[in-house]
Amino acid sequence: CQALRMASSGMNVAAFQKDKAYVDGKWVSAKSGKTFEVTNPSNGKVLGSVPDMDRSDAQAAIETAYRTFQAWKSTLPKERSDILRRWFELCVKHKKELATLITLEMGKSFPEAEGEIAYSANFLEWYSEETRRTYGDVTPPPAHNKRVMVIKQPIGVAAMITPWNFPSAMLTRKIGAALAAGCTVVARPAEDTPLSALALCELAEQAGVPPGVVNVITSSRENASPIGKELCENPLIAKISFTGSCAVGKLLLSQCANTVKKTSMELGGNAPFIVFDSADVDKAIQGLMFAKFRVTGQTCICANRILVQEGVYDKFVQALAKVIDSQLKVGDGFEPGVTQGPLINKRAVEKVENLVNSSVGEGAKVVVGGSRKDGPGNFFNPTLLRDVTTEMSVAKEEIFGPVAACIKFKTEDEAIAIANSTSYGLASYFYTNDISQSYRVSEALEFGMVGVNEAAITSPETTFGGWKESGLGSEGGKYGINEYLAFKNICYGIQHKA
Amino acid sequence: CQALRMASSGMNVAAFQKDKAYVDGKWVSAKSGKTFEVTNPSNGKVLGSVPDMDRSDAQAAIETAYRTFQAWKSTLPKERSDILRRWFELCVKHKKELATLITLEMGKSFPEAEGEIAYSANFLEWYSEETRRTYGDVTPPPAHNKRVMVIKQPIGVAAMITPWNFPSAMLTRKIGAALAAGCTVVARPAEDTPLSALALCELAEQAGVPPGVVNVITSSRENASPIGKELCENPLIAKISFTGSCAVGKLLLSQCANTVKKTSMELGGNAPFIVFDSADVDKAIQGLMFAKFRVTGQTCICANRILVQEGVYDKFVQALAKVIDSQLKVGDGFEPGVTQGPLINKRAVEKVENLVNSSVGEGAKVVVGGSRKDGPGNFFNPTLLRDVTTEMSVAKEEIFGPVAACIKFKTEDEAIAIANSTSYGLASYFYTNDISQSYRVSEALEFGMVGVNEAAITSPETTFGGWKESGLGSEGGKYGINEYLAFKNICYGIQHKA
Amino acid sequence: CQALRMASSGMNVAAFQKDKAYVDGKWVSAKSGKTFEVTNPSNGKVLGSVPDMDRSDAQAAIETAYRTFQAWKSTLPKERSDILRRWFELCVKHKKELATLITLEMGKSFPEAEGEIAYSANFLEWYSEETRRTYGDVTPPPAHNKRVMVIKQPIGVAAMITPWNFPSAMLTRKIGAALAAGCTVVARPAEDTPLSALALCELAEQAGVPPGVVNVITSSRENASPIGKELCENPLIAKISFTGSCAVGKLLLSQCANTVKKTSMELGGNAPFIVFDSADVDKAIQGLMFAKFRVTGQTCICANRILVQEGVYDKFVQALAKVIDSQLKVGDGFEPGVTQGPLINKRAVEKVENLVNSSVGEGAKVVVGGSRKDGPGNFFNPTLLRDVTTEMSVAKEEIFGPVAACIKFKTEDEAIAIANSTSYGLASYFYTNDISQSYRVSEALEFGMVGVNEAAITSPETTFGGWKESGLGSEGGKYGINEYLAFKNICYGIQHKA
Amino acid sequence: CQALRMASSGMNVAAFQKDKAYVDGKWVSAKSGKTFEVTNPSNGKVLGSVPDMDRSDAQAAIETAYRTFQAWKSTLPKERSDILRRWFELCVKHKKELATLITLEMGKSFPEAEGEIAYSANFLEWYSEETRRTYGDVTPPPAHNKRVMVIKQPIGVAAMITPWNFPSAMLTRKIGAALAAGCTVVARPAEDTPLSALALCELAEQAGVPPGVVNVITSSRENASPIGKELCENPLIAKISFTGSCAVGKLLLSQCANTVKKTSMELGGNAPFIVFDSADVDKAIQGLMFAKFRVTGQTCICANRILVQEGVYDKFVQALAKVIDSQLKVGDGFEPGVTQGPLINKRAVEKVENLVNSSVGEGAKVVVGGSRKDGPGNFFNPTLLRDVTTEMSVAKEEIFGPVAACIKFKTEDEAIAIANSTSYGLASYFYTNDISQSYRVSEALEFGMVGVNEAAITSPETTFGGWKESGLGSEGGKYGINEYLAFKNICYGIQHKA
Repeated sequence: CQALRMASSGMNVAAFQKDKAYVDGKWVSAKSGKTFEVTNPSNGKVLGSVPDMDRSDAQAAIETAYRTFQAWKSTLPKERSDILRRWFELCVKHKKELATLITLEMGKSFPEAEGEIAYSANFLEWYSEETRRTYGDVTPPPAHNKRVMVIKQPIGVAAMITPWNFPSAMLTRKIGAALAAGCTVVARPAEDTPLSALALCELAEQAGVPPGVVNVITSSRENASPIGKELCENPLIAKISFTGSCAVGKLLLSQCANTVKKTSMELGGNAPFIVFDSADVDKAIQGLMFAKFRVTGQTCICANRILVQEGVYDKFVQALAKVIDSQLKVGDGFEPGVTQGPLINKRAVEKVENLVNSSVGEGAKVVVGGSRKDGPGNFFNPTLLRDVTTEMSVAKEEIFGPVAACIKFKTEDEAIAIANSTSYGLASYFYTNDISQSYRVSEALEFGMVGVNEAAITSPETTFGGWKESGLGSEGGKYGINEYLAFKNICYGIQHKA
Repeated sequence: CQALRMASSGMNVAAFQKDKAYVDGKWVSAKSGKTFEVTNPSNGKVLGSVPDMDRSDAQAAIETAYRTFQAWKSTLPKERSDILRRWFELCVKHKKELATLITLEMGKSFPEAEGEIAYSANFLEWYSEETRRTYGDVTPPPAHNKRVMVIKQPIGVAAMITPWNFPSAMLTRKIGAALAAGCTVVARPAEDTPLSALALCELAEQAGVPPGVVNVITSSRENASPIGKELCENPLIAKISFTGSCAVGKLLLSQCANTVKKTSMELGGNAPFIVFDSADVDKAIQGLMFAKFRVTGQTCICANRILVQEGVYDKFVQALAKVIDSQLKVGDGFEPGVTQGPLINKRAVEKVENLVNSSVGEGAKVVVGGSRKDGPGNFFNPTLLRDVTTEMSVAKEEIFGPVAACIKFKTEDEAIAIANSTSYGLASYFYTNDISQSYRVSEALEFGMVGVNEAAITSPETTFGGWKESGLGSEGGKYGINEYLAFKNICYGIQHKA
Repeated sequence: CQALRMASSGMNVAAFQKDKAYVDGKWVSAKSGKTFEVTNPSNGKVLGSVPDMDRSDAQAAIETAYRTFQAWKSTLPKERSDILRRWFELCVKHKKELATLITLEMGKSFPEAEGEIAYSANFLEWYSEETRRTYGDVTPPPAHNKRVMVIKQPIGVAAMITPWNFPSAMLTRKIGAALAAGCTVVARPAEDTPLSALALCELAEQAGVPPGVVNVITSSRENASPIGKELCENPLIAKISFTGSCAVGKLLLSQCANTVKKTSMELGGNAPFIVFDSADVDKAIQGLMFAKFRVTGQTCICANRILVQEGVYDKFVQALAKVIDSQLKVGDGFEPGVTQGPLINKRAVEKVENLVNSSVGEGAKVVVGGSRKDGPGNFFNPTLLRDVTTEMSVAKEEIFGPVAACIKFKTEDEAIAIANSTSYGLASYFYTNDISQSYRVSEALEFGMVGVNEAAITSPETTFGGWKESGLGSEGGKYGINEYLAFKNICYGIQHKA
Repeated sequence: CQALRMASSGMNVAAFQKDKAYVDGKWVSAKSGKTFEVTNPSNGKVLGSVPDMDRSDAQAAIETAYRTFQAWKSTLPKERSDILRRWFELCVKHKKELATLITLEMGKSFPEAEGEIAYSANFLEWYSEETRRTYGDVTPPPAHNKRVMVIKQPIGVAAMITPWNFPSAMLTRKIGAALAAGCTVVARPAEDTPLSALALCELAEQAGVPPGVVNVITSSRENASPIGKELCENPLIAKISFTGSCAVGKLLLSQCANTVKKTSMELGGNAPFIVFDSADVDKAIQGLMFAKFRVTGQTCICANRILVQEGVYDKFVQALAKVIDSQLKVGDGFEPGVTQGPLINKRAVEKVENLVNSSVGEGAKVVVGGSRKDGPGNFFNPTLLRDVTTEMSVAKEEIFGPVAACIKFKTEDEAIAIANSTSYGLASYFYTNDISQSYRVSEALEFGMVGVNEAAITSPETTFGGWKESGLGSEGGKYGINEYLAFKNICYGIQHKA
């Protein structure tokens, strides 16, 4: 029926579903010949298989990328801009096919998948425009006989390791910046979602990205670690950009030390979502539905700790329960009306289940949901917990699932203290209608991103990056391209007399 | 005689020579009560002793700095500016006393030491001005109901580990930026040169730096490693900035991984100094004398590999020999006319001696010098080697001593290839009078700094930072303060109708 | 008694009260030998006299400034920075003497005059820091064989014509920027307040401003017009910056056309001050007291049309009346407790009186004040009018006196429409505690400056400039120095092969 | 034959040749019903006619643009970006048709016309990207209770008056910036070349530019002046941007004074082209051929005064003569191989003829050319004059024709003095291979643009603008969009305690 729907809509998903990796402009197998299977988390069915590459494949890809860099770095910004724009346009053109692959391999609802492709493509567009704007500086002279300037050059080969929750957008956000800067790329997508990455390569090629500029290597979970190590340790790699868990991020950082590798890290979050008494509660609930339940709670900026001031706590929880009941529908992402696809795998379901159970054991009360959904697929019902305290594990760990845990607080200072009492520092949200409070709280929150009366806080224009253990560097926005540029200070000595 | 000279000049060096560390605005001993001696490399005499602090002392200093940060971060830029400026003015006022301490504990000639203090103070001035200019951005709206801005806030407590070759300037370059940004500081100066660091604290206090904002802890070489580990691993430290060797830098980076610590690294260099046929040879020699023999060859941006095009090679080497003979004088840094002080210690002398001997064994010819200076003190005679090849160890390792190793090359491409064939990427120099060549070569050199017909390439306005294994981040210039700022993206949701 | 107070405070005002103009580093008379008197608006007494220069004096000053520019433009930013800072420090040091001159020649209360000197000096400090930060750009290459940069150079000789209401600050805001940029200056202060301008010259000289860099020419009202014409038409002048009335600004602009002169114009305002129902009324009143009654209502950013939403109108007017009664005191600016000095001259008093009377004739009601103060001096009592409508002349003209005219409105849209229904566009203010409203209204107001819950909106960091007929260009802040810089695009052609 | 060639190439020029003006999204006649004819300067034939609008038509267009502005200003940057990009793409798609219109109505060779369309379209692309990057600033707080930002908003309705020599590019360079900023437009193209302007409107409409956003009004020379006056004086116009002669620019400026209109002026030039002894003479000649003979010498940045150092003067002149003879071909722009189309009209031919004759009378020698071309059309033969002196009128006036006037000089200082001895300051060029000289001379030239060993100095990335009487403001590059933005400083007062 799915295939039927596609056929009727004129889509040709098969043309974008690859079973090879993409290196040096060629579709290649692992040197070992091994492959691994990709499955649909909604039903466990195998979608296909892709090369299970190992460290030697990574080395080959790196050498390709390094060789290619020598020419690519000297292309004009306008030339790179044109290529990125064509890639953007092709992604838009094939939005439905690409979105289908996302829903198939990762489970998010098809409308969400379409949204991701739009978001993903927009990074290519954004960076197609950034490339001509990497202005250097002419420094006012520090001495009569000196003239100083700073130029910004591509840093070299950039390695990327990307996660499964945004299998397309996390790649373009990095590759777009890298290519715009003049870097070449070796990327390793998550083992759960290699198909979306490979589909992007197909379009890159159509867009005129030269062979060797973008290289995507796929591997099973077993080979993830040796490949990661190679990307970190190989001196031909100038930069590594990773989006994923804190634990893996820290491992990569330690492996990067020996080559003084430049790194960008977008790691986990534990986002507070604060509702002050002065807030518009309806707006806050509307915001929370997005911040909490998008991608079934599996984004790194999902609201994790919902802090509600005592004056509106009960009202908020009650209203939220109704909205969850009425607006959320669990099921296969292709099914009309479904908003909540499956979690990525069984382990994820178990983790969420354990968090809910242990919190309930510690005194939290289930208002809505609280359990898995029966039947096949990795589904968990949307859940609302009240009477949650900061000591409960659901408030300490990154839930990464559809569980809204509501904590009551009394004062602004208390809310800020709770919000900041974590080693994470990615996203945060609060709702208020007090101007001074909006400034006080947004300044006090130790997070790289703050939504004030707003939950949809990301876009290509956004400077996305985490504080504390949530990351290093930033992506998107005015500064994202800097992660792929090296600054060079040039000082001319000149003579004043002819 | 030295004391006499000071007395006659109205200096009171004793007032600046401290025997305690400086934490929370107090002059403190190590908790253990231990101390270690500081000696003069010109004659081996003991100058005094300072606390030999350990990891527990570091922890205490970190906690002080973290507590103090909560208030300091909310001071106004203008308030911080005023304090930094007073500090700058006091350094200028006490230039001679501070310079005396440098020559005493580190050996560089007194004029060079005075130069360092001027340079050092200028960073405080530069950052006193930068602090009011950490503009954030108002991002053009990505959606009708959103308003986005990026603000830049102090990152937190900054730890610093600094080297002995610029015992004052490497501190102010970091502390100036940190304080300007609104950070507090825990700094650990090199065990060879703690006195200059402590003297800066005396003036910081006079300037009105509040207690706990700048904390300087001293230790022997034995405690360097545990203190470094603490600075890297303590989660209250948000940022570590290190200037020193690649080996230590890599160790620190690996220790920083587990807290995803933000890092700035200014590590070693292996600077090429290229003289093209079209160059003004006299200017090139003048430049080389500075780039090679300043601080007796012990700076991280010293010319290490002197590449001279075949058309001018002989002429260059002959003229250089004469200039070395006529302009350089070895001796105690206080002695009038001395340009070449001692190396920092015996090991340094042995290393340089070995490099020269092994190169001669491989075919290099000594044109000038080539050996230690007889007598006490860690002196090595200014040395000129010709017929050096890229395979010789003198061309591969960072010499860090007064040895000019001249390599002949034929073509521009060859010179660039040799220059880039190193894992280092800090400074580089070349001399030419061909405009196109000046662009081609400055763009092709894989180094963070390039001098074109100029050897004195640093100043507060300069973006100082290394490529490849020479470092992470940059200091000074337009971007230096960013190393101590965290970027926060704030997205307001707004309603269009009243 | 005044002289006594000064003497007892150790001030030497006489040393700063000049009777000559300042050209080419010399204190000079008019070529004609003529002078004119300066009087105290509090009592009409003559304070002294200064040269009544004419067009030929202006020409001489321009030639001096042009000749001097050839050297000054090549000074280093750091050199100019040092001079400007010394000038700043001297102004701070002599704050009381300078403030005394302001109160004497212009009438504002002594505390206000001290405030002006602090504000005035701060511009010199701000620009002493800006001068080293006039970064040009290295443009990413538009073609393989081109390298492009933009450098920013001083524009040339800058002419300035400044008003009497801020006799010191309006000069330093301009001269600071000009000198920082590398320009030389010919300034013509208002005929009412030449003494403050000349006192600045005394300190400029002490600070090391070279002869001919700052030239101040004085004249009576009769010679203002021919001097203005010369400044506009002389081709040696590259730039004219004027602060004053719209009428004079327009005349100058027309005179500048024929030499395509670059101009900065800070002209009149007709500032709305809007109080929404959600506002904190006490804060709004506190803000209005500053925005309306500072300098007795004689600033170009004074609140002119006070728009109060119907829900708080009565409460606001009643509370405001009490505050005016209790907080304002009219009298000589040196008298303790006085907040309201005289208006600048008799004509000003008559104008204010006419505005009040005609408005009352049209239906406005006097709540407080409404008439001149009896006795000598140009005093007008602080006045509060209610039931003012937008058709009354008090709502259409710039009052430039201590009259608060309160208009009632119903909706946000209505308030915005009223606020924008003027050809002026300088400052505006509104009070609300609704975040969305704060964005909506600040974006909709057609004014160069907006205070949101804040009336003290200026500082050196502020981008000060008017929209519509209120001006051209901006002063202070990040962009102020640009008014004195010319941008030059340099395109190098280079060859890729040696 | 021309029509034939078009037909065979699939072009449909007729679809783009309009006989109506374009206002409020409609093709309209003049209210008076009058029209005027457009002729081909190659043969004098009438190409068609367009409305001869007058002041009342201008008023109507202004009111339309003002009304439309109220909605257009609130569109999102991304929305405007998409529209501009589509317009760019349509221009590229219809390059040949648009180029045909240029050659027909203005005479430049068809390859040059194609080049102009590419250049013209590139401005639309450039500004489609600039629109999302009009970042405001968050100013570091000047006080504890204040938060300051600067936002950049569209300035209002922008009027444009454009010349005939680049009938397409001068429009898009302005309109692109205006639309990107959020402004609406009323444009008046030169009476010689209205067809290219109207063809752009056709494509704007196809691209989705909403009705009333771009309005193009056409008129004969007689109505140019009253329309210009209306554009300058109407208070609904916020900004006027003019490219054309100095004389007209000055008139417009004087008319703008009374509404304090913001203006951008790109006026005439008198470009020096300096060849130093060290230059690569062949490169210099190659550069001069472009700088002098492009568009038959009729660009505002054409080399006007060719200054050649004595050491290479004779060699240069001889070689140049040969190149002129061998490379230039005069004729109808559609004729294959033609590089030199006609001058725009008879008056232009007479002016050039007079300049040549008078210079010869004063001692200049004709090396090549020197006279009109016989036959119909406004042709003048490419001309090389030697022994020209700075006193000759050919060196003082803007030639605007194919005459290369070579002056000999001795020293660098002399060349700079001659170059700067003009009231113009638009473009300049020099050739050298001395690095220090390249810095000295590029800094000393009082011109807004400098080509160093390069004559093709413009591109969308270029900051294009004149110094002295050559203009106000700049176009293109990083700053071009600022001409259409108003800066607003917003200061929030906030409370620190809840």
